[in-house]
Amino acid sequence: MTTLPAGLSRPEFDRLIAAFVDALGVESVIADATRLREYRDPYTYRESDEFDAAAVVTPTTTEQVQAVVRIANRFGVHLWTISQGRNNTYGGPAPRLRGCVIVSLREMNKVVEIDDELAYAVVEPGVRWFDLYEALQASGGRLWSSIPDLGWGSVVGNSLDYGVGYSPNGDHASQLCGMEVVLPDGSVLHTGMGAATGNANWHTYPHAFGPSLEGLFKQSNFGIVTKVGVWLMRRPQRYTVCWVRFVGLDRLEHVVEALRSLMHEGVVLNLPMLNRGLEVDEHGMSVVVPGSDAWSGRFALYGRATMIDTAYAIIEEEFAGIDGVQLIRRDFDGTDHSGPSNHDERVQRGIPDMDLLDPNMLPFGADTAHLDLSPIGTARGTDTVRLQKLMDDLYSRHHRASVGGILLNKRHALHVSTTFYDPRDPAEAAAVFEAYGQMVDELAEAGYLPYRTNLQNMDRVANKFDFGGGAQLRFVETLKDAIDPNGVLAPGKSGIWPRALRQDQAVPEEKGAV
Amino acid sequence: MTTLPAGLSRPEFDRLIAAFVDALGVESVIADATRLREYRDPYTYRESDEFDAAAVVTPTTTEQVQAVVRIANRFGVHLWTISQGRNNTYGGPAPRLRGCVIVSLREMNKVVEIDDELAYAVVEPGVRWFDLYEALQASGGRLWSSIPDLGWGSVVGNSLDYGVGYSPNGDHASQLCGMEVVLPDGSVLHTGMGAATGNANWHTYPHAFGPSLEGLFKQSNFGIVTKVGVWLMRRPQRYTVCWVRFVGLDRLEHVVEALRSLMHEGVVLNLPMLNRGLEVDEHGMSVVVPGSDAWSGRFALYGRATMIDTAYAIIEEEFAGIDGVQLIRRDFDGTDHSGPSNHDERVQRGIPDMDLLDPNMLPFGADTAHLDLSPIGTARGTDTVRLQKLMDDLYSRHHRASVGGILLNKRHALHVSTTFYDPRDPAEAAAVFEAYGQMVDELAEAGYLPYRTNLQNMDRVANKFDFGGGAQLRFVETLKDAIDPNGVLAPGKSGIWPRALRQDQAVPEEKGAV
Repeated sequence: MTTLPAGLSRPEFDRLIAAFVDALGVESVIADATRLREYRDPYTYRESDEFDAAAVVTPTTTEQVQAVVRIANRFGVHLWTISQGRNNTYGGPAPRLRGCVIVSLREMNKVVEIDDELAYAVVEPGVRWFDLYEALQASGGRLWSSIPDLGWGSVVGNSLDYGVGYSPNGDHASQLCGMEVVLPDGSVLHTGMGAATGNANWHTYPHAFGPSLEGLFKQSNFGIVTKVGVWLMRRPQRYTVCWVRFVGLDRLEHVVEALRSLMHEGVVLNLPMLNRGLEVDEHGMSVVVPGSDAWSGRFALYGRATMIDTAYAIIEEEFAGIDGVQLIRRDFDGTDHSGPSNHDERVQRGIPDMDLLDPNMLPFGADTAHLDLSPIGTARGTDTVRLQKLMDDLYSRHHRASVGGILLNKRHALHVSTTFYDPRDPAEAAAVFEAYGQMVDELAEAGYLPYRTNLQNMDRVANKFDFGGGAQLRFVETLKDAIDPNGVLAPGKSGIWPRALRQDQAVPEEKGAV
Repeated sequence: MTTLPAGLSRPEFDRLIAAFVDALGVESVIADATRLREYRDPYTYRESDEFDAAAVVTPTTTEQVQAVVRIANRFGVHLWTISQGRNNTYGGPAPRLRGCVIVSLREMNKVVEIDDELAYAVVEPGVRWFDLYEALQASGGRLWSSIPDLGWGSVVGNSLDYGVGYSPNGDHASQLCGMEVVLPDGSVLHTGMGAATGNANWHTYPHAFGPSLEGLFKQSNFGIVTKVGVWLMRRPQRYTVCWVRFVGLDRLEHVVEALRSLMHEGVVLNLPMLNRGLEVDEHGMSVVVPGSDAWSGRFALYGRATMIDTAYAIIEEEFAGIDGVQLIRRDFDGTDHSGPSNHDERVQRGIPDMDLLDPNMLPFGADTAHLDLSPIGTARGTDTVRLQKLMDDLYSRHHRASVGGILLNKRHALHVSTTFYDPRDPAEAAAVFEAYGQMVDELAEAGYLPYRTNLQNMDRVANKFDFGGGAQLRFVETLKDAIDPNGVLAPGKSGIWPRALRQDQAVPEEKGAV
């Protein structure tokens, strides 16, 4: 049974599909119900059609993306953009609004440029972390990319959604510089210095003449990014993986203080990750020990051997002041690809893998689903412990097992957590989502909000941003209506709905301000 | 003779002033022609009234800024926001459009918060670099601010206009996190995590839920920023000023390559500045030697003494490979305030001064004006030499003496240059501005654009951004019209005019895209 875009008759839908075929070719348009099932959220528990797409189009060029957007405007249908569609736990490839046409950018998968000297690459949205890694290797291996845990996702998609990695460039959204964007009217925008034809600083200068627009295209529905510069790091002479091992939440506070201090001193430059229930041996191999109060903190040093040795001496001194803390280090030459032999060693060095979804390690094998809840806290030791305890308490009260960790930045900490479930068990899956909503509410009560969320909870989270009666969302909606008057792009993304679809949203009314 | 806002009769203007007085108090409203002359551009060469304001209001609270914006909407007048009004060479306090009411934020000058642990301050727009420095000292001196060359300017104003400094946080616009903004309708927006009332991560998490909006308020006219978080650096154990001395443009190429390499390796973390015609002695004292082809590059190391010594050994090794290059270093304890005894030593350490406007060092004493032209190039050695030669050629062909330097970033380089003139000499001043316009045109022809410009040239520079028939400016205008339908805020800033004032601008027509 085909899902039709809202308001379209079957003959109109046929004409829409014909227009897409005319623009892209028949092999780039999917309207077959069976094939469309691949574009459902693989982790969604129910056989509901709430997030079903009407069709999928797969443009291969910016011009084809423009054509798709223009057709959408002409027919009054909604689009939902995916890069690789691997946004699993947040909805995978599925659209927020039933009946959207998915614009899959998987076939726009070129690494357009690699600049060894200035340390950046220009990539299309279909480029996976695996692809970027391979391209960097093929071009001489002088640059390393920051990567997230799973290599199959899109560099652009992950970075635009504020995804994180573990290198000194681990805040991926901050490494984007210079975008090509197809706007909701089908025109093309080059941001920053790229707004001047042929300017050599499109991907080197992070601002613009006038306002900086790139933030608008992150975690939003204001345009389709078809190309972007990604800042990379130079391959270091040496790469040293460090572990700090300890037991108990009391020590966590002091370890966080020590790590944050080392970050602010410029000794540790990447983003440390702290995990409980992970025991690490002297070979850097970690073993999950559920229920254990053993913690391990993982970070890395990059650079000249002499700098690393000097830094490590400072790190030893810093942690010597905390009773019961053990340090482990593993050194690798920067050119050593096979030495880093486990996920923790690879992921901080930019070698992508899929280890964290190894079916043998997951409770329900290859069918295992997970639901992530990752609030932002400050990087203070006391706050970190407080939020960790709150997360423990929430999962416990909601009778869910969870794994997670704390990704430490210089000023904030991301408390990532996930719970595994069997998506084939509707009752368990429903309970997981029910608990998620309640936990978001309770976290917000306590002052914490997640950095991203799933399709089911975008409105819920958006409405937690309550200052000024929802001033931020109201402002964003004003922009949305101006940029995308027909509301063609990704309605509902991050709680942002176009005017025509806003009536049933619980958005506070704007008070006349003048 | 009073300048009236366009379209307002004298009685209407009187009612406008009465409304401001009613909202702010009489001492916060200036409409006296003599006092208004202080708000002219001090460097403008002519007695023309082209950039004259109609009045100045000086709100002291966010609520008063809201009241001012609402009054402007009611009366249909335009506002021009200044923080300290020290934007000299770019227009000083003067508005782009004659008849604007200047909103001076000088009296909103509170350092609202200093967080020693997370290394940020929250400041109002009237806070000068001097004030922030004093506040940091008063609170224990554990944090250092990045600063520009002149201490009298506003932290917020400089950073919003993409101003630069010389510390590891020298890209000031990138250090802003968490804004309070009065929008053109008089409502208040809190950006990022601050959009949730009381969230502790307003000034620690650099993104948002949904799109990141802060870029919109930089170098633009979309809102009045009334408060913002500024990321700071921790006071290091040791501060080491380094100089690299050499002669000739050929060596510049290699020195830039070496410095950029050290930056990408994480050895040099601040922004080096390269100057020609500066000779530096072993005490770090620099002397200007006009016409000399002697260069000096200035950078600094911050951190533990052992790290600095290790880094310096790498730096020595790096420069040993370039014939004819000398290194100088000067070490200071992080707590040493009086040791750094000259501008170069102070400015990389965050101790503000006014040395660069010392009347004794300027050709026309305290009356000396300067006109800056600072294009962006890449950080490649060859490009740096090419642009330097082009700048030399331009100034030479336009018969202007200039001083300047190259501020090196990891991927781009800012070629700052200035020419001094006597603003009391109308012929010379006119010639300076005439040359500036031609030089901008020639630079753009060669692929280079300045990172900011003066009132006289905002439209000129904006129109150089020609991709897609001016797609960026068109997009920005769409946003402007949606956010500020009455066009009350800063018409013409960065070439952005509200709809009602756009007819005479040379903006390409939008082509129907759908």
